Amino acid sequence: MSRTAPAATPLGDAFHVYDTTLRDGAQREGISYSVADKLAVARHLDALGVGYVEGGWPGAMPKDTEFFARAAAGELELRHAALVAFGATRRPGTTAAADPQVRALLDSRAPVVTLVAKSDRRHVERALRTDAAENCAMVADTVAFLVGEGRRVFVDAEHFFDGYAFDPDTALRVLEAAVGSGADVAVLCDTNGGMLPLGIAEVVTEVAARTGFRLGIHCQDDTGCAVANSVAAVQAGATHVQCTANGYGERAGNADLFAVVGNLVTKLGMPVLPDGALAEMTRTSHTLAEIANIAPDTHQAYVGTSAFAHKAGLHASAIKVDPELYNHMNPVDVGNGQRILVTEMAGRASVELKSEELGVDLAGHPDAVSQVVATVKEREALGWSFEAADASLELLMRTARGDAGTAPFALESYRVITERRADGEIVAEATVKILVDGERLIATREGNGPVNALDAALRGALAPSCPWLADVDLTDYKVRILTRGTGAVTRVLIESSDRTAEWTTVGVHGNVVEASWLALVDALAYAALRARAQVTAG
Amino acid sequence: MSRTAPAATPLGDAFHVYDTTLRDGAQREGISYSVADKLAVARHLDALGVGYVEGGWPGAMPKDTEFFARAAAGELELRHAALVAFGATRRPGTTAAADPQVRALLDSRAPVVTLVAKSDRRHVERALRTDAAENCAMVADTVAFLVGEGRRVFVDAEHFFDGYAFDPDTALRVLEAAVGSGADVAVLCDTNGGMLPLGIAEVVTEVAARTGFRLGIHCQDDTGCAVANSVAAVQAGATHVQCTANGYGERAGNADLFAVVGNLVTKLGMPVLPDGALAEMTRTSHTLAEIANIAPDTHQAYVGTSAFAHKAGLHASAIKVDPELYNHMNPVDVGNGQRILVTEMAGRASVELKSEELGVDLAGHPDAVSQVVATVKEREALGWSFEAADASLELLMRTARGDAGTAPFALESYRVITERRADGEIVAEATVKILVDGERLIATREGNGPVNALDAALRGALAPSCPWLADVDLTDYKVRILTRGTGAVTRVLIESSDRTAEWTTVGVHGNVVEASWLALVDALAYAALRARAQVTAG
Repeated sequence: MSRTAPAATPLGDAFHVYDTTLRDGAQREGISYSVADKLAVARHLDALGVGYVEGGWPGAMPKDTEFFARAAAGELELRHAALVAFGATRRPGTTAAADPQVRALLDSRAPVVTLVAKSDRRHVERALRTDAAENCAMVADTVAFLVGEGRRVFVDAEHFFDGYAFDPDTALRVLEAAVGSGADVAVLCDTNGGMLPLGIAEVVTEVAARTGFRLGIHCQDDTGCAVANSVAAVQAGATHVQCTANGYGERAGNADLFAVVGNLVTKLGMPVLPDGALAEMTRTSHTLAEIANIAPDTHQAYVGTSAFAHKAGLHASAIKVDPELYNHMNPVDVGNGQRILVTEMAGRASVELKSEELGVDLAGHPDAVSQVVATVKEREALGWSFEAADASLELLMRTARGDAGTAPFALESYRVITERRADGEIVAEATVKILVDGERLIATREGNGPVNALDAALRGALAPSCPWLADVDLTDYKVRILTRGTGAVTRVLIESSDRTAEWTTVGVHGNVVEASWLALVDALAYAALRARAQVTAG
Repeated sequence: MSRTAPAATPLGDAFHVYDTTLRDGAQREGISYSVADKLAVARHLDALGVGYVEGGWPGAMPKDTEFFARAAAGELELRHAALVAFGATRRPGTTAAADPQVRALLDSRAPVVTLVAKSDRRHVERALRTDAAENCAMVADTVAFLVGEGRRVFVDAEHFFDGYAFDPDTALRVLEAAVGSGADVAVLCDTNGGMLPLGIAEVVTEVAARTGFRLGIHCQDDTGCAVANSVAAVQAGATHVQCTANGYGERAGNADLFAVVGNLVTKLGMPVLPDGALAEMTRTSHTLAEIANIAPDTHQAYVGTSAFAHKAGLHASAIKVDPELYNHMNPVDVGNGQRILVTEMAGRASVELKSEELGVDLAGHPDAVSQVVATVKEREALGWSFEAADASLELLMRTARGDAGTAPFALESYRVITERRADGEIVAEATVKILVDGERLIATREGNGPVNALDAALRGALAPSCPWLADVDLTDYKVRILTRGTGAVTRVLIESSDRTAEWTTVGVHGNVVEASWLALVDALAYAALRARAQVTAG
């Protein structure tokens, strides 16, 4: 991520990219942001060039109150985005100034406040238990109060599309109460997520014509159309679009920021982010998935690792010649890349292409290509997957070509003991016995768990001969149980890093410890190759 | 799934739901169907009432050739769907009758053939290396030959939308060659997936007006709009829609069958599946994910386990009173259900609601509610997640309420040894020491891996006193590594079944073996509760 301040968005205030990951996104099952997480998410969204970052609901959620307090105290320096506090209008039968929830919005010191207002008469009557007139008074009063206190105010018209279909006059009167009292944008929310694009476009067009107000859009993904609905609303005249990173949100989720922005910029030619920001999307998406602690969606539009991955062996050569014939855009423009997948469906051509991509070049080694194709087929039938483990594939290719140094040691045996003792203590201990250049090395180490102990013991045995190991970290460890026929096997992916590069290796076995061992050995063998190459280069 | 033949679709041949999971869906990174898998997928799609099941490309893919051969030999009895073979038009400069690839389509004995034809002039010239006239001749000749042999033929016009934008006359001439020679449907394919709904609707409307042909639609999800694009095409006049189960497909995937059908039936009122089929969608989606060996997308529209899950503690009571105010439809209509999530964001109200849902009812036990709320908060901060582990949550509730039998044994200690011996043999062996009603029980067992050995040893110790254990199977085991601050913990989810029910339990620890142990103990404790309840009921 660039450390210099991003340029202003070309469209300026004429178009708002409004992110609600920290409020509506956090409603997703499985997300639980800490305050530090929230600060980090806001920084990444700001660096991407998003115009508005909704930080949460101060007063309603203790974490959110703390987030705004720490942001106001200087922990969050936004260079591009405006910070937004979300909240409700005052309660029925009181005044905005006297409502502690409204007061908490002021106390948050956020320069922008988004108020949620009910615009479906049935919700007003059945959930709020008041009437349409008092509902409008609540909106008008709260907006006027906050505007009077110097805040910019947007109003989210909750369940607008259902409300408009059921009783359009009541729904429009809520928008009038908001904008008439000083709100800058009336945001039409498909809160239930039940709309389709043509219907959204029709209503937005009609409401824009009837009111002349600046309109925003907020879509949920219950019909699988949140992205399309958001874009259709913009095409129909909305100039403020609310999204969440990776579409996080309650139920089926919200409109995905990256797909919406990708579509607006690349398909509709609207420069809604600062110049250069689009190329940061893939990295930002993956970083935000990391913070949310949710595995990235590999098939996500624009930013997924598979978004530009081609499998068909039949087309591999055609894609190589003319990539623009097979991709809807240049993946580099969104910080992504095209990938050719090596799978059992692929043949020699794909392996050769992939070897070029990895810098091994098997073009002059037909026997090595045959051997790699055969090994990949055989292993994939057992549950291996090289699609996500380029380092293991490269080792396979180098071994087939006869490169030196692909096996830095030979294993004699290992043993791992994991126990919960009678006193409640839980311990893991591993012993490995290996041969390096004919020398027999033995090491025993403890660890947090069996794989950690095994990693420690292997490093212990190798350390004297491999000083570069100190720079190599195991950064991620993923386990997947696969059912193959009547039995199950475990597939382990290990991500490693040595400060200048990252690589992924794979191991598969019926026993999780052996599967981990295989991935671990590849990880260290790859590190050894890198260390050799650096020595040679040096 | 019902065993009686499904009723015909109310719309009959007037609308085609066409599934290409087995051909285009199999292009998804990570999918590798066996022939047995393909037969199973076809049966499930047929049982759901899909009109057309595209089985693959006979002649091009050996597995697909075998699939059609076994289907023709009687292994696949379809009660509703027609089986479709996919293939290409004849090569340039030959005849359809002489082309072995076309011959393979006939040999597949599938009653319907879908031919892919290039409709973008740039692809014709650069990938096919022929001219527009020969391309049309290839289409016309191949369609006429197959129709002459008694096949029903559909034509997929590849890259149609790009081609139509670049050179509409060439694109339309391909459709004319297809329909003029006897093809029943001209399918407009957004092969690159770069379109948006309003653009799709415009082109479909225009092409329908200019040709009068029966049109189909095939969308890819590269803009995140495949579902919306498919629905927009239907609204613009397409009467044949190609989808894949769960949106599986190359790159970002295809249009998701379940979301498209859900939208057509519930939003547009088009009965495109037989009566009653919609309620089978959720189960079918999950079963097909299982066969593809891909974790179901929990946030998938209509069928995801979170699609109707509400987290906000603030709204829990309102949702209980008026669920139709907060869901876009009744989840039961698609075989799904509403869920209230118990998370650290939720308070006493959500725990009480959830206890009702689980049949524990803590309404009269305020201290138990406090204890559950406190335990859930504390454990979720450590990485536990009860959202997907109702059985562990129920045990927590029952323990808090003081129910008997929630802890069927006490652990003294366990020990697991995993080793790769010098002879290459890999073994796992576990010993557990437990106390049941004061009696000390010890058992040692071997297993495929450490967790399997531990499960076997625990069952060995419990077997004499728990004969019902024979009916309890561990059906799935999932591992997730979570980063919490500076360290990592492992979360294990175990799914179990006893022939009449399935349940999920959770365990979290820095050591994967201990995390597995915790989930395993809950799984067996829950089984013990069920066994007790059955004895009592009997």
